[in-house]
Amino acid sequence: MGSLSNHAILLLSCPDRKGIVASISQFIYEHNGNIVHADQYTDTEKGQFFMRIEWELDDFDLERKEIPEAFSPLAQQFQMKWMLCFTDYVPNVAIFVSKAPHCLYEILLRHSSGEILANIKLIISNHPDLRPVAETFGIPFYFFPITPETKSDIEKQELAVLKKHHIDLIILARYMQILTSEFIAHYPNRIINIHHSFLPAFVGSRPYHQARERGVKIIGATSHYVTPELDAGPIIEQDVIRVSHRDSVEDLIRKGRDIEKLVLARAIKLHLENRILVYENKTIIFDT
Amino acid sequence: MGSLSNHAILLLSCPDRKGIVASISQFIYEHNGNIVHADQYTDTEKGQFFMRIEWELDDFDLERKEIPEAFSPLAQQFQMKWMLCFTDYVPNVAIFVSKAPHCLYEILLRHSSGEILANIKLIISNHPDLRPVAETFGIPFYFFPITPETKSDIEKQELAVLKKHHIDLIILARYMQILTSEFIAHYPNRIINIHHSFLPAFVGSRPYHQARERGVKIIGATSHYVTPELDAGPIIEQDVIRVSHRDSVEDLIRKGRDIEKLVLARAIKLHLENRILVYENKTIIFDT
Amino acid sequence: MGSLSNHAILLLSCPDRKGIVASISQFIYEHNGNIVHADQYTDTEKGQFFMRIEWELDDFDLERKEIPEAFSPLAQQFQMKWMLCFTDYVPNVAIFVSKAPHCLYEILLRHSSGEILANIKLIISNHPDLRPVAETFGIPFYFFPITPETKSDIEKQELAVLKKHHIDLIILARYMQILTSEFIAHYPNRIINIHHSFLPAFVGSRPYHQARERGVKIIGATSHYVTPELDAGPIIEQDVIRVSHRDSVEDLIRKGRDIEKLVLARAIKLHLENRILVYENKTIIFDT
Amino acid sequence: MGSLSNHAILLLSCPDRKGIVASISQFIYEHNGNIVHADQYTDTEKGQFFMRIEWELDDFDLERKEIPEAFSPLAQQFQMKWMLCFTDYVPNVAIFVSKAPHCLYEILLRHSSGEILANIKLIISNHPDLRPVAETFGIPFYFFPITPETKSDIEKQELAVLKKHHIDLIILARYMQILTSEFIAHYPNRIINIHHSFLPAFVGSRPYHQARERGVKIIGATSHYVTPELDAGPIIEQDVIRVSHRDSVEDLIRKGRDIEKLVLARAIKLHLENRILVYENKTIIFDT
Repeated sequence: MGSLSNHAILLLSCPDRKGIVASISQFIYEHNGNIVHADQYTDTEKGQFFMRIEWELDDFDLERKEIPEAFSPLAQQFQMKWMLCFTDYVPNVAIFVSKAPHCLYEILLRHSSGEILANIKLIISNHPDLRPVAETFGIPFYFFPITPETKSDIEKQELAVLKKHHIDLIILARYMQILTSEFIAHYPNRIINIHHSFLPAFVGSRPYHQARERGVKIIGATSHYVTPELDAGPIIEQDVIRVSHRDSVEDLIRKGRDIEKLVLARAIKLHLENRILVYENKTIIFDT
Repeated sequence: MGSLSNHAILLLSCPDRKGIVASISQFIYEHNGNIVHADQYTDTEKGQFFMRIEWELDDFDLERKEIPEAFSPLAQQFQMKWMLCFTDYVPNVAIFVSKAPHCLYEILLRHSSGEILANIKLIISNHPDLRPVAETFGIPFYFFPITPETKSDIEKQELAVLKKHHIDLIILARYMQILTSEFIAHYPNRIINIHHSFLPAFVGSRPYHQARERGVKIIGATSHYVTPELDAGPIIEQDVIRVSHRDSVEDLIRKGRDIEKLVLARAIKLHLENRILVYENKTIIFDT
Repeated sequence: MGSLSNHAILLLSCPDRKGIVASISQFIYEHNGNIVHADQYTDTEKGQFFMRIEWELDDFDLERKEIPEAFSPLAQQFQMKWMLCFTDYVPNVAIFVSKAPHCLYEILLRHSSGEILANIKLIISNHPDLRPVAETFGIPFYFFPITPETKSDIEKQELAVLKKHHIDLIILARYMQILTSEFIAHYPNRIINIHHSFLPAFVGSRPYHQARERGVKIIGATSHYVTPELDAGPIIEQDVIRVSHRDSVEDLIRKGRDIEKLVLARAIKLHLENRILVYENKTIIFDT
Repeated sequence: MGSLSNHAILLLSCPDRKGIVASISQFIYEHNGNIVHADQYTDTEKGQFFMRIEWELDDFDLERKEIPEAFSPLAQQFQMKWMLCFTDYVPNVAIFVSKAPHCLYEILLRHSSGEILANIKLIISNHPDLRPVAETFGIPFYFFPITPETKSDIEKQELAVLKKHHIDLIILARYMQILTSEFIAHYPNRIINIHHSFLPAFVGSRPYHQARERGVKIIGATSHYVTPELDAGPIIEQDVIRVSHRDSVEDLIRKGRDIEKLVLARAIKLHLENRILVYENKTIIFDT
């Protein structure tokens, strides 16, 4: 946590069969790598195998750029989908916000303290309100006012900025706009949203009003990857907090903020540490 | 908890205005009662006042049966809806079950230990499976097999049994039948159900399958009063437990059991201690 | 929450006997006050009665300064200890910090959002590190380096600053110095500390190291009033978070920060809303 | 969960070095085993490697009794401490109780429902009170009254019974006697206790009284392996529940029961599924 170790991480999935673990660990061993972490999961129902394996590169006898080619035959043999990451690569992140500052502050403070390891390249907003926060932390702030008519154009401008800065991950930190499918298609499983309810309860707008109206005794927040279907993407993390009949909608909003920012921060951390695999609209999380 | 104290409890609601607390506490004081607990809540939006007040009857100079008449003028003055209960009255309870034993055991064990103060008069089931449990605890067991054709007739027979035993509260302890509106109308806010999901998420059948399918990270259980609209009655208590992608539907069911029985037991306790007021399909719970 | 209503609050304790609630509510009613909240607790073992009662001053026919004298006979009759507060009085607060910023940020952000209603008059620290944070939020920062030799002198200087600013509440937001008894005596039950363990487990220094060493599965944080006996003052709020063998001391510290700041924020809010009574080194909290 | 699969499990620890995972998974693969679960942990501070690896025996080309010898060279090469288990071996369990029934019922009910897979061979008690519970579930009940004078003798008789029934695991389900070091030495890391506090807070007797006296806002329970030093053995599982000033000692005891039985049940399940390694008085738990 927090330090930039010199490790490689393989995230992979393939049809389950004998010899996968042996082959992968043999591959690492014969190139003189030391496995520091490995976690696997088999979905017996679907016959699918998933793995996250992390090893030290210090004595590894392959250059980083040589690894994919060297690993390729093994991947083909087992029909793997796989991704190779390095723990010392610091991802480029863009944060989208509207007016509410609590999630933005949470991310920036955890970034300051070294918990969130990322280059926060820019903040994009459809309102100017949070510009001072961006300035305090020295992060470029882009103000893109959006109307239904301009949305498509604005998204193109936003995409241009994102591409220019080689953004790896987009965080919607209480960004109160719905992204178009076209936009989302550029960042599959790379846009993390925080929804202010315990999904799938209270999808759509004003979930705290819905929660108050229904008289629930617990409210929650859900962080998920954004997909074209609203509020229906793969869930990364959820948490809840108790409420009572005494809590007004304002109280729910206030209590909800504490959960929202915590849940979002955890989801971001899991993503940045390459601990998430998405399979059939669900997440497999290697978080031990 | 657990002892049969000699107290009176008033549960009331009325339009909010000055002097309510003063009048009620003055009424109790002038009849020489000692208030041992009082809790109130004002719904400022609706302008409605709610109260639960409990006092010792030892030196109270009114007989129990005299209290309603003596209190009546005050109740009329403030347009109160009110209910008078006594802590040494032990309510008659019927438990409805199907095949799953965990909630039934939970209730019977908490009853044995003195936590749930009630006369458990009978257990009704549409399956014979749990008869031995009933016998172990010495409680009469009624087996009423139900088919869509016989449902209406069977419910009449059940009602006859319930009336005969002066049942005050019906507990649906994982009873897998939907009660008719006619049946429910006999016990308004006196039928407690445990639903095996975090309502309003996953209403309807097989909620754990739905939860697994959606890939949620937390599952829950909800105890509520039964109303004609399925799964939509006033929520009394909810709780949750964390799950992961590794949990199969069977795991969810197993983890869910732990929450279901706990949530149901808490809801029963709140009801039996006269701590619940229902207002506009929501519960006000005086549980401090 | 968040708005400055025009209410009076009485916090009181006295030996339990009949007529207390009736007398107090009658007093408020006869002066034309509307009770908006009341909560009481009787310690039957000690025979002690505690109450928090809040009423609207809009039509109240006593001036604020007349209330104490008018209430005095009743207080004497029941041998009450009592305190009168007004919800539109905004307390003056000083925050003590050392180097860790997370609790300070938490307070300042909740203050910004209107959750913590207080005049944060100044920040005092034995290190200069957090001066930029203070400046960002426009709050005067006093740097008082402390050595064992200078401690007594420094505390006198600090007291002078605190008195000058009419400080009502001191918050130790991870202030890594032990205050002297002389200092504490100036602010009885008005210094709130956050201790980074689940007291009374792991009192003293380096609690996360102790927790790791003992192999606990849950860590916690405790907010309490400061008394001369170290870590032994009345507990206001506690919370916990799960950990595992995989968590290093650094992980525990990181996870602990999330709990520390939340627990401290809740304790501050309870204090500022006049919801806490201290009795025999324990808190009675009217938080419904 | 609940089914008797035909798997082998290796639990092992050794000094960390390259090639461990590769060698073990190669060993399994070359004997035609299919790894269904593997989890590992490296204590980088101590340089120690820990692993739990589980594979299907269906096509494995070694007989069970041949595995140890075949694995032995590899174990020696890496200086492993290791243990081989089979998922279809059902351990023999003895439960020790005194008077409180809640933990005993919890175990017996989870056993009935198939969650706890064990042969519960016998119940031993120093009081006769729970004999009827044992009889209901058809489990032999041994009543061994103990006095300080007879303790040593009685323990010998108990050991004889335990040996005769080939007991693998002893569960102290609120057994209110302290076992001697001699007794404990027969079952190292095979006696699980439930302590009714959040250890290390409130060690020793009457922890709920201590908790009430200290005014904590949360109470807990701790399940641990029994070692000669009282309440100081490796912690397996802990959990907590919120309390308030309103909770009497009796309320704490009642709330505590709910946590105690849950924590104990989880610890038992972890042990029976061979998910626990003990290292330097701490547990490493492979519970993903």
